[in-house]
Amino acid sequence: MEQFLSYTKEVQEALQNKQPVVALESTIISHGLPYPQNLEMARKVEEIIREQGAVPATIGIMDGEIKIGLTEEELNDFATSENVHKVSRRDFAHVIAQRELGATTVAGTMIAAELAGIKVFATGGIGGVHREGEITWDVSADLTELAQTNVAVVCAGAKSILDIGRTLEYLETHGVPVIGYKTNTFPSFYSRVSEFGVDYQIDQPEAVAKSLKTKWDLGLEGGAIIANPVPEHAALDYNKIENVIQEAITEAKNNNITGKEVTPFILDKVKSLTDGQSLETNLALVYHNAEVAGLIASAYQEN
Amino acid sequence: MEQFLSYTKEVQEALQNKQPVVALESTIISHGLPYPQNLEMARKVEEIIREQGAVPATIGIMDGEIKIGLTEEELNDFATSENVHKVSRRDFAHVIAQRELGATTVAGTMIAAELAGIKVFATGGIGGVHREGEITWDVSADLTELAQTNVAVVCAGAKSILDIGRTLEYLETHGVPVIGYKTNTFPSFYSRVSEFGVDYQIDQPEAVAKSLKTKWDLGLEGGAIIANPVPEHAALDYNKIENVIQEAITEAKNNNITGKEVTPFILDKVKSLTDGQSLETNLALVYHNAEVAGLIASAYQEN
Amino acid sequence: MEQFLSYTKEVQEALQNKQPVVALESTIISHGLPYPQNLEMARKVEEIIREQGAVPATIGIMDGEIKIGLTEEELNDFATSENVHKVSRRDFAHVIAQRELGATTVAGTMIAAELAGIKVFATGGIGGVHREGEITWDVSADLTELAQTNVAVVCAGAKSILDIGRTLEYLETHGVPVIGYKTNTFPSFYSRVSEFGVDYQIDQPEAVAKSLKTKWDLGLEGGAIIANPVPEHAALDYNKIENVIQEAITEAKNNNITGKEVTPFILDKVKSLTDGQSLETNLALVYHNAEVAGLIASAYQEN
Ligand SMILES: [Mn+2]
Ligand SMILES: [Mn+2]
Ligand SMILES: [Mn+2]
Repeated sequence: MEQFLSYTKEVQEALQNKQPVVALESTIISHGLPYPQNLEMARKVEEIIREQGAVPATIGIMDGEIKIGLTEEELNDFATSENVHKVSRRDFAHVIAQRELGATTVAGTMIAAELAGIKVFATGGIGGVHREGEITWDVSADLTELAQTNVAVVCAGAKSILDIGRTLEYLETHGVPVIGYKTNTFPSFYSRVSEFGVDYQIDQPEAVAKSLKTKWDLGLEGGAIIANPVPEHAALDYNKIENVIQEAITEAKNNNITGKEVTPFILDKVKSLTDGQSLETNLALVYHNAEVAGLIASAYQEN
Repeated sequence: MEQFLSYTKEVQEALQNKQPVVALESTIISHGLPYPQNLEMARKVEEIIREQGAVPATIGIMDGEIKIGLTEEELNDFATSENVHKVSRRDFAHVIAQRELGATTVAGTMIAAELAGIKVFATGGIGGVHREGEITWDVSADLTELAQTNVAVVCAGAKSILDIGRTLEYLETHGVPVIGYKTNTFPSFYSRVSEFGVDYQIDQPEAVAKSLKTKWDLGLEGGAIIANPVPEHAALDYNKIENVIQEAITEAKNNNITGKEVTPFILDKVKSLTDGQSLETNLALVYHNAEVAGLIASAYQEN
Repeated sequence: MEQFLSYTKEVQEALQNKQPVVALESTIISHGLPYPQNLEMARKVEEIIREQGAVPATIGIMDGEIKIGLTEEELNDFATSENVHKVSRRDFAHVIAQRELGATTVAGTMIAAELAGIKVFATGGIGGVHREGEITWDVSADLTELAQTNVAVVCAGAKSILDIGRTLEYLETHGVPVIGYKTNTFPSFYSRVSEFGVDYQIDQPEAVAKSLKTKWDLGLEGGAIIANPVPEHAALDYNKIENVIQEAITEAKNNNITGKEVTPFILDKVKSLTDGQSLETNLALVYHNAEVAGLIASAYQEN
């Protein structure tokens, strides 16, 4: 397995010296934002993690290898290349075998982080049960990954287009702890709140780290959600954004937009209906997650 | 992992000497019955297991440790304390890390039993797919635990408020054997029957033990259901109890009772609509499960 | 675990010498076809695999053992015995413990193949989510087996009576790669096409083998689907067969045919409504899968 892993020097030394490391995904770079904002975002996220005393490890697949940490040049490749594969569990081996360029999703990044021994991962929002998922059975592989892979995911909840209630039911059924970081409400990505609670609120990075360490010391396989609401200054109103999404879903249906085209359509709508504010909110929550992930990774190593 | 386990002397010696041990849960003590009936029940269950030549190990979480076997004083704490946490898989590590008092559910007890090397566990009824679960996706973590954790659960079926049919489908999909102990019908907790069959009927504890041993010797991970109907003298009529539950569900809906309040509301209704007989039935089935678990645990060790 | 495995000399030598071996199921023999066609089919499948330079290992449970490879006499027993058990995960240990005769399903064969170290398995079609499964939750244990057991299954898609769309959603959620062999469309058993795509098309056995090897070298547990459409000369028309199945389902409903009786009823209907052509198609696809499995097993060993 080691033959597939390729580390930057910085990340390798950090792992060897048991210094805090935070994993970062590459799908948000290749598929989440346009160039050059994606590259700026990717750099800024790394910078924020360094400010917390941790080492960022942006993860991607390239040249038949899993890159744990990307160089400037590699980051640029992910930010500018066309047709980068989105790599979830089912795609992971194939994209390596074919030596293709693969941007890792939440599930894909968790797999790579566990292989590399990285315990904390910062992202925007996880995948989950899609709206009407009780009919379509469209459920992100991020959830089954959380059920089995030993990585904590710092996020602002599930992606806004998803069904939060059923996503939380799925996580409960599969024994995945949902920790609210300084909140007792499960956040809804663009907004700080939702109609749903968390399993328990924890306010200190040290206490989060202890809970995670205890879980893995006990041999309880699987990840954890650290739900971290978007900072107030950048938060959107829950009801407003929910209405915007409902409107976008209806419009998608009326226009016979189905399958993989629904999500980008809705996100575009949300962006235009919020006068672009949703993009700012998205960036703000990613930065905030990076900061909190840095704190938790640091606390985890000192533990 | 060993550092989290704390055994009573009796249980530790039994495990070291490969004597039969039966695990027991603590949620039924802290959340299932009022004081002092809960304490009486807890003691009587232990007594019944001893009468079968096995050692009872009531399991709970306390002072940052997993207690495998509880002292008189500890049993009393679980029976009388307010706000004891219900500990399923997602809560397990956190309640230990926070040194809180945690009563283990079926899932939580299975985790602890496996860590301690106990193969047989007696309870009342398992959790499962909730009624209307095909819409809500409310599915107990007991089912995913049965899919992965190597403990046999002796029970009188699933808790009566659940959807038996979909619970059995879920177990089949996840490869969990459903053994009918002296029955070819899956029991429905208060009643000895239901509309559903079992995977196979086994009438001898030795044959159950052999089937379990073969499963685990083969490396087939996961638990098994030993479905043991409530004794006839205490059994309620299937159609009568089903009508009572349907009535209670309708009343809950009409009164906008939702979420975690539904189950206690229905159970209260069932109790009052059966003039308290449901409580007697519940005790009778727990005692019977303890007896059968003792027999199976003994047969398993002699195997 | 080794004590439960019993190999034919041919299979044992092939495994020791790292020669290609292809696993075959026995349910298709005991429950899929009438005698003597089932025996002819079983022999011809083995012959086809040998023609590809691989060794066939038909798998069944007998005398408390898992037979890896069946003798002429044993094959005959499976082809002619009444009341042979269908062995999926939940039945596996019990049928061994009881020393009963057990024909392995896709799930059961995968378990046995993994225990024996066989990586490639040829069958007709896998089980999956049943039509209306979003309501009934009737989902084959083949899917959870694919999520966890390291065997590649060469098939012509899912059995035709199933819900292809939700079956593919389930596989995606659980991270199972769905590889189209020389096709970018997921085949629908009797027909070469469906409304659904595959995760990726691969045209060379060597490339399939490399993808599988990479997956397992990475420690990514679970199987893979190699979807191999029925040869054109034997293929039925997608819309025609779909209409026939819909008609059969309606007739089953009108006649109150439910549960385990639905599938044989529909298959009988399909057979009579296609003037028996569906049986020819079924045989043709099984032979074709055996051929492709032989090629992939050979490529896997040379890798
Ligand atoms: Mn999906
Ligand atoms: Mn629930
Ligand atoms: Mn089924």
